[in-house]
Amino acid sequence: MSSSMWQFSKRAAALKSSAIREILKVTELPHVISFAGGLPSPDTFPVKKIKQAVDDIMNSDEAFSALQYGPTEGYKPLRQWVVNLINQREQTNLTTDNVLIVTGSQQALDLIGKALIDKGTKVLVETPTYLGGLQTFTQYEPEYVSIASDEHGLNPDELSDSVAQSASFLYTIPNFQNPTGRRLSAERRKKLADKAKANQLLMIEDDPYGELDYQGHRLPSLLSFAPDNTVYLGSFSKILAPGMRLGYVVGPADFIRKLVQLKQAADLHTPSYTQHIAYHVIKDGYLGDHIPKIRELYKTRCQFMLEQLEKYMPKSVRWTKPEGGMFIWVVLPEHIDTTTLLAEAVKNNVAFVPGESFFATHPQKNCLRLAFVTVPEERIEQGIKILADLIK
Amino acid sequence: MSSSMWQFSKRAAALKSSAIREILKVTELPHVISFAGGLPSPDTFPVKKIKQAVDDIMNSDEAFSALQYGPTEGYKPLRQWVVNLINQREQTNLTTDNVLIVTGSQQALDLIGKALIDKGTKVLVETPTYLGGLQTFTQYEPEYVSIASDEHGLNPDELSDSVAQSASFLYTIPNFQNPTGRRLSAERRKKLADKAKANQLLMIEDDPYGELDYQGHRLPSLLSFAPDNTVYLGSFSKILAPGMRLGYVVGPADFIRKLVQLKQAADLHTPSYTQHIAYHVIKDGYLGDHIPKIRELYKTRCQFMLEQLEKYMPKSVRWTKPEGGMFIWVVLPEHIDTTTLLAEAVKNNVAFVPGESFFATHPQKNCLRLAFVTVPEERIEQGIKILADLIK
Repeated sequence: MSSSMWQFSKRAAALKSSAIREILKVTELPHVISFAGGLPSPDTFPVKKIKQAVDDIMNSDEAFSALQYGPTEGYKPLRQWVVNLINQREQTNLTTDNVLIVTGSQQALDLIGKALIDKGTKVLVETPTYLGGLQTFTQYEPEYVSIASDEHGLNPDELSDSVAQSASFLYTIPNFQNPTGRRLSAERRKKLADKAKANQLLMIEDDPYGELDYQGHRLPSLLSFAPDNTVYLGSFSKILAPGMRLGYVVGPADFIRKLVQLKQAADLHTPSYTQHIAYHVIKDGYLGDHIPKIRELYKTRCQFMLEQLEKYMPKSVRWTKPEGGMFIWVVLPEHIDTTTLLAEAVKNNVAFVPGESFFATHPQKNCLRLAFVTVPEERIEQGIKILADLIK
Repeated sequence: MSSSMWQFSKRAAALKSSAIREILKVTELPHVISFAGGLPSPDTFPVKKIKQAVDDIMNSDEAFSALQYGPTEGYKPLRQWVVNLINQREQTNLTTDNVLIVTGSQQALDLIGKALIDKGTKVLVETPTYLGGLQTFTQYEPEYVSIASDEHGLNPDELSDSVAQSASFLYTIPNFQNPTGRRLSAERRKKLADKAKANQLLMIEDDPYGELDYQGHRLPSLLSFAPDNTVYLGSFSKILAPGMRLGYVVGPADFIRKLVQLKQAADLHTPSYTQHIAYHVIKDGYLGDHIPKIRELYKTRCQFMLEQLEKYMPKSVRWTKPEGGMFIWVVLPEHIDTTTLLAEAVKNNVAFVPGESFFATHPQKNCLRLAFVTVPEERIEQGIKILADLIK
């Protein structure tokens, strides 16, 4: 669709509507069993606690600052909360100069793309990787290099010094990655961080799922191994509520300063209102009680879906066995194209995300992503059975 | 400041910290009389009404959708509210396909810059114009053409057909413009819209201050004269609360569709939480009672500042006499550089914004912007007296 009234920029004209987006439209219908969405379970939203937080704010003079323009960097007490969390957990020495609050982690990806990518800039990514990251970076016309990855995540042995040196940055999701659910092993983290340090490679460590570790055995972040080489992205979407659109960026102070300039032009600042609410909810350690409940729920659902896959899928099908997060990645026999399969599945009222769009280069057509956290158990069983029958 | 660990993109490296930003830091000190900020008066924030709206949401099942991910286009009832408002006021025939909710109007400017500007794309602007618009568009490397403007706003007679045809779009703020406070006359609106139609020129009509019309005599929008040629930006920041960061874009459906794709990459969607709250506040006509109170307050403050300027300023100084909005624009004798004057003023605990950065081309150094809405009357008098003494 175009008009003589305007001409889109090259970057805008090149944008295509995303597969996830088109699928989500179908899956809004209540009779569809949808494994497609990346939505957290609403059962985990702390409604009562948020209501209390809003009351506290609106019954005091804080209401006026929560409703007024605020600094681009974010609400200072919330930034300080992030500093304390990361310093304690990752043994870093951050100050608030190292922290920027963003309107969801997605905004961090856009600001980082703007800050670092010119036409042809080399960007290293996992195989596969987060679709929303690719969509965002692609606007700035990078040249992607996919680094070989397996069930333990990105393989640092497959990242040569010359490739590391030629790139602007590596984008990686070490914990319970979207779309595969896999986690980068502790040994590989150390190795990757050493390689980054040796080659002055910047790593963008995207970590929305890190807290959703079913056993509560968190592995040290890339940030902890190589703080000067790492920009770390955290999110409140999966541990509080995605409708707040709150995330944060942790990085070297001069890098954060540049992101602040870009963010000022992008939306002046993240809503003061949601920042104040989130701070009130979490300031007294509430997440320490809340997160284990989310882990327990997601662990049960994941376990249940894995059992159904085991029960119904033919031997030729393989899948990841996540230790945390929201996704299972399924690899079908090579002759099956999951985009074609999706059309069939939707006719049978089941939805998933075809794997193809998660590859920056050399797309594999025989993979798909399953999300299990919003689907009740009886519907998980029913949906997996339908999928298995279609695959057979 | 740079690091061998990364290299900023050309667009990011070219970004400078804004004058407004640096000044706002100084003016945070409570003893400074600041005419610099563009902040609405917190006296106008409807705290009680917002608290009621939040209670209604959090005590019902709506809490779950207000806390969940939502569509990129925005919360549908809020989009429908915008449709009804604009159709009634501007005699248009919009549907929700013509409306996108954004994280403040600033985000709309960024998305429009992304959608339309390649390196060297011609963008037409008023003289002077909104600094935040210039900052945002500049990231995408346009070539600006400043259209001559006077106390009645942009002069359509100064816009030639060939310039209109060569440009991607015209950016304009017809109502109580930031920084001048001036309003485009009805006659000029008609003439500009006709010129846009004749030359297939797209107009970006930025209208955050339109409701702040002291007499309540709203002039018809450019959108009403030329709906196919106009993308209209509305905002809740000046009539509800800027800390919510809520604005909207109204435009042709295929243009909106492209902005939706760009917005998905930018922040997925504007917070569901603030959209639900705003909708609950305004759905039953609350703004009809609320906005007249804001107008009355701002009119009184404006009148008072104009009287003080009359009383204290030397004859060589001229200023606009706004009929609405938040700003007065002051033109000093040509030998005075207002950036130098600001340094002196701040020593005397008074702040304003020097006019220079509001010009896309050929900056004029002898102008300044005064904001009056957050300053109590006795401090307005004191501040204007200090400024006048410095100018003398």
